[in-house]
Amino acid sequence: MSASPGKEPRTERGRETLRKLLDAAAREFGERGFHEASISGITRQAGTALGTFYTYFDSKEAIYSALVGDMSQHVARAATAGMSRDSNGTVREGEALAAFLAFARDHKEIYRIIDEAEFADPASYRQHYTGAAERIAARLEESVKAGVVTPGDNEIRAWAIMGMNVFLGLRFGVWDTSRTIEEIAVAAEALLSEGIAAR
Amino acid sequence: MSASPGKEPRTERGRETLRKLLDAAAREFGERGFHEASISGITRQAGTALGTFYTYFDSKEAIYSALVGDMSQHVARAATAGMSRDSNGTVREGEALAAFLAFARDHKEIYRIIDEAEFADPASYRQHYTGAAERIAARLEESVKAGVVTPGDNEIRAWAIMGMNVFLGLRFGVWDTSRTIEEIAVAAEALLSEGIAAR
Repeated sequence: MSASPGKEPRTERGRETLRKLLDAAAREFGERGFHEASISGITRQAGTALGTFYTYFDSKEAIYSALVGDMSQHVARAATAGMSRDSNGTVREGEALAAFLAFARDHKEIYRIIDEAEFADPASYRQHYTGAAERIAARLEESVKAGVVTPGDNEIRAWAIMGMNVFLGLRFGVWDTSRTIEEIAVAAEALLSEGIAAR
Repeated sequence: MSASPGKEPRTERGRETLRKLLDAAAREFGERGFHEASISGITRQAGTALGTFYTYFDSKEAIYSALVGDMSQHVARAATAGMSRDSNGTVREGEALAAFLAFARDHKEIYRIIDEAEFADPASYRQHYTGAAERIAARLEESVKAGVVTPGDNEIRAWAIMGMNVFLGLRFGVWDTSRTIEEIAVAAEALLSEGIAAR
């Protein structure tokens, strides 16, 4: 959770206001998109005065970048929270996917906000996905060392797994929630674990 | 390749002009994004008169939808062209991925244009990905019948494979082309074929 440089809150109350502004920004950008969203729309949704916005942020662009970074952190934390203690390998990746699907169902605005960064804030967009892929690759490295994942190119694998998760989340988390998270995660984990070629 | 309703070209020359407008639209939308792109920018890039645009399209929105549909067809054709005769199963999916990576390297604007449809033309966005997933699922069904792919939920698998391809294409096709298409496709096919769990 970060304000514009030099505008970081120093009190608990300030941090609460910053949180309120970021949550309001998620609604405003999620509902109206980057171009139509406005600072006055954000402060209206937050129930704060317009001047309060500038206490923490320099511009619409600044709060949008902060919001993308904040959502990245939320996604990362949700995935980590979904992993059971001591799990590893493809089981852990299945748990991370299930947690991400649940997160996407509860925060349907996340796709709209992060995907629009490809246009509105390309650096944040790239950082979001690069960071997520690096976390997956690090988990795979660990699992290779533990002997539960075969050695291989974990960077390519990580981007493949992230892509799987993003599109399964879009299809079965945001567009259509008629199937259970369990069945999506089980099918994806089976693919990841054993592949689909007949032997 | 489709014009606005009632404006389909009836002559070879008309089809060439329509093609020229769509190619110009790919450059204009790719370089400037949907909001900044203009009809006059498209006709300037196409080297046609402004009136020619309206012979084929009703609006900027109309040519953008036509362009997304046109690119969908191009991606589908490129993938099909990359598949060797009689290949099936995960080998065929590896060939499709390699063809898509080559296509993405040659048409780097494709991500920008198709991804912006999530905001500028959600129906076309959904149709693009739903169509691509259906093609993958149909190939998998065929491969299950041929006994080279294990039975399973081919809809979930198709969305997973499509997501893999999209993110591998973004990372190794558009952002960074320092690795060979071959090594990306080989690693992805191995994941898909045998999975990554140690046995």
